Amino acid sequence: MKNNKIIELEMGGGGKKSEELVGNIRNILKGQGKWENTKDDGAVYLIPNPSPYKGEGGNKLVFTTDAFIVDPLFFPGGDIGKIAICGTLNDLSVMGAKPIGLSLSIVIEEGFLESDLKKIINSIQKISKSTGVPIVTGDTKVTEKGKIDKIEITTSGVGLASKIISNDGAKAGNDIIVSGDLGEHAVALLAKRFNYQTKIKSDCQPLIAEIQSVAKYLTSCKDPTRGGMAAVLNEMAEKSKTKFVLDEKNLPFKKETLAISELLGIDFFSFPSEGRFVATVAKKDSKKVIKILKKYNKSARIIGEVQNGKEVWLKTKIGAVKKIEVPRGKLIPRIC
Amino acid sequence: MKNNKIIELEMGGGGKKSEELVGNIRNILKGQGKWENTKDDGAVYLIPNPSPYKGEGGNKLVFTTDAFIVDPLFFPGGDIGKIAICGTLNDLSVMGAKPIGLSLSIVIEEGFLESDLKKIINSIQKISKSTGVPIVTGDTKVTEKGKIDKIEITTSGVGLASKIISNDGAKAGNDIIVSGDLGEHAVALLAKRFNYQTKIKSDCQPLIAEIQSVAKYLTSCKDPTRGGMAAVLNEMAEKSKTKFVLDEKNLPFKKETLAISELLGIDFFSFPSEGRFVATVAKKDSKKVIKILKKYNKSARIIGEVQNGKEVWLKTKIGAVKKIEVPRGKLIPRIC
Repeated sequence: MKNNKIIELEMGGGGKKSEELVGNIRNILKGQGKWENTKDDGAVYLIPNPSPYKGEGGNKLVFTTDAFIVDPLFFPGGDIGKIAICGTLNDLSVMGAKPIGLSLSIVIEEGFLESDLKKIINSIQKISKSTGVPIVTGDTKVTEKGKIDKIEITTSGVGLASKIISNDGAKAGNDIIVSGDLGEHAVALLAKRFNYQTKIKSDCQPLIAEIQSVAKYLTSCKDPTRGGMAAVLNEMAEKSKTKFVLDEKNLPFKKETLAISELLGIDFFSFPSEGRFVATVAKKDSKKVIKILKKYNKSARIIGEVQNGKEVWLKTKIGAVKKIEVPRGKLIPRIC
Repeated sequence: MKNNKIIELEMGGGGKKSEELVGNIRNILKGQGKWENTKDDGAVYLIPNPSPYKGEGGNKLVFTTDAFIVDPLFFPGGDIGKIAICGTLNDLSVMGAKPIGLSLSIVIEEGFLESDLKKIINSIQKISKSTGVPIVTGDTKVTEKGKIDKIEITTSGVGLASKIISNDGAKAGNDIIVSGDLGEHAVALLAKRFNYQTKIKSDCQPLIAEIQSVAKYLTSCKDPTRGGMAAVLNEMAEKSKTKFVLDEKNLPFKKETLAISELLGIDFFSFPSEGRFVATVAKKDSKKVIKILKKYNKSARIIGEVQNGKEVWLKTKIGAVKKIEVPRGKLIPRIC
């Protein structure tokens, strides 16, 4: 970080510039104590004796955090509260951890409607109840007008895992799978923001049960949130030193998703989902895994293959081959 | 929370209105799973088998979170980074936990100076290194201008404890102690904000070593941050169903602190400290405890006594008795 440079919006979009900013911060803060050196979002602390954890999720403590400033606050399929809780539950889940508790920090601008706050809190409670993961600690602050735009929520989570699913575990020969239709969180929020008509709702949902049901088969796993599939697949390919090859005809993007992408001129590969995961699986397991996942979502499918090499490539329907780049700069408005 | 009411600034000041807002949120979110039912800021999760934790801090997992919007960002004795890290380390420490790792979530307004961000990150790193508590996970987001005022930091922390020091454990007959001069965080920030001259620096610092050195003697413990001594002592008295009686002549407020309090018309009992704790101790242990604490801070002292009854009372120097009320409404600008 040089001297009178400023922080640019593009540094927070989940693309390459994000990685520069975050990388800089990470470099200064390096030093992990007794925590494992993982390449994942969450941190892992090994609890010495595994025996007490039978049925408790395992002997590895996983710890993660995420900040949420979303516009609009309420959207088809959810609100900022739901997204904040699901985001942290999913960060734990994609690492193979069973979430045991969440913290909730809320910063509210004075003048915010109590009824809106209540809606947000109720929506948090609903997910907490349905997943059985309690909100165990929190902080609530109110700031002067203009100090924050309406409301900001930061959630942290702790979970227990017996085996960490890393996002660098893809092996050449693995199949690449997704758990359902992609990018619908982006479609719902963009439609609301730009006043388009669509029936599509945000896919925002907790992934705990889905991932737990196939966790033992996954060689790597990640949720395509900020930066969408483009950012996440490139990260997985790079970290596991492999090449990801996608088959366009198998990609689960709905027609409406492709249409809004074209309308706004935003690549749908950068559209975030908030209730989907992408994973790699040994070829011998992939059909079994998809069969299980289809119980949760009929659109779960194999979308490609991991190969030797690097980068992310798409085999198009007409037989061409196209590189999927990490999104650069500001992708779309802050929607996750 | 009724329908078209709005959130008022006063609800975030650490006083009575804060308790109403936070209480409402807590009521909706109640349900604690396997977490212990404590009355403290942090949450406690019992790890079944204590044996592996010898030397690791104990078998109780403590989890806490705090959001920081501070103005000014840089002040004599610290900055928003230092306060965010110390705040969470101290929340774990006052519960008797040994912090094992922190999360760091930063929301930055576009246009923020990279050099200022670097100063903040360096200051976080300094505390992390000196305490040996790593920053193990994080999130960094950049928002459009006006969505946030400069920077907001949320820290969460996990720690391990063998015995929780609760803030409801005070017993009639206990002495009330403090670890040093009080309210200096408020003095330093108010002076900077209102352009007064003062040599006083913020007391912002981690309390890990200090509290660990006397933890076994403390019957209750809390750090007087938001709402200052007035809020914290009332909370401790109420939760432990006792009366706190303070002796004015023993209170460690510096002259400059009393002067700025008078100048601005803000009660110094509501001045936050960010590196002090108040605790209760059995009378037989209090001299021993103060002797140990004086190695860290010469102003550590006994300031009063816990009695049967309720509320917080001050015996003034002239022999009168005055009730110390929970601060109402907006106390002072957002300085912690």
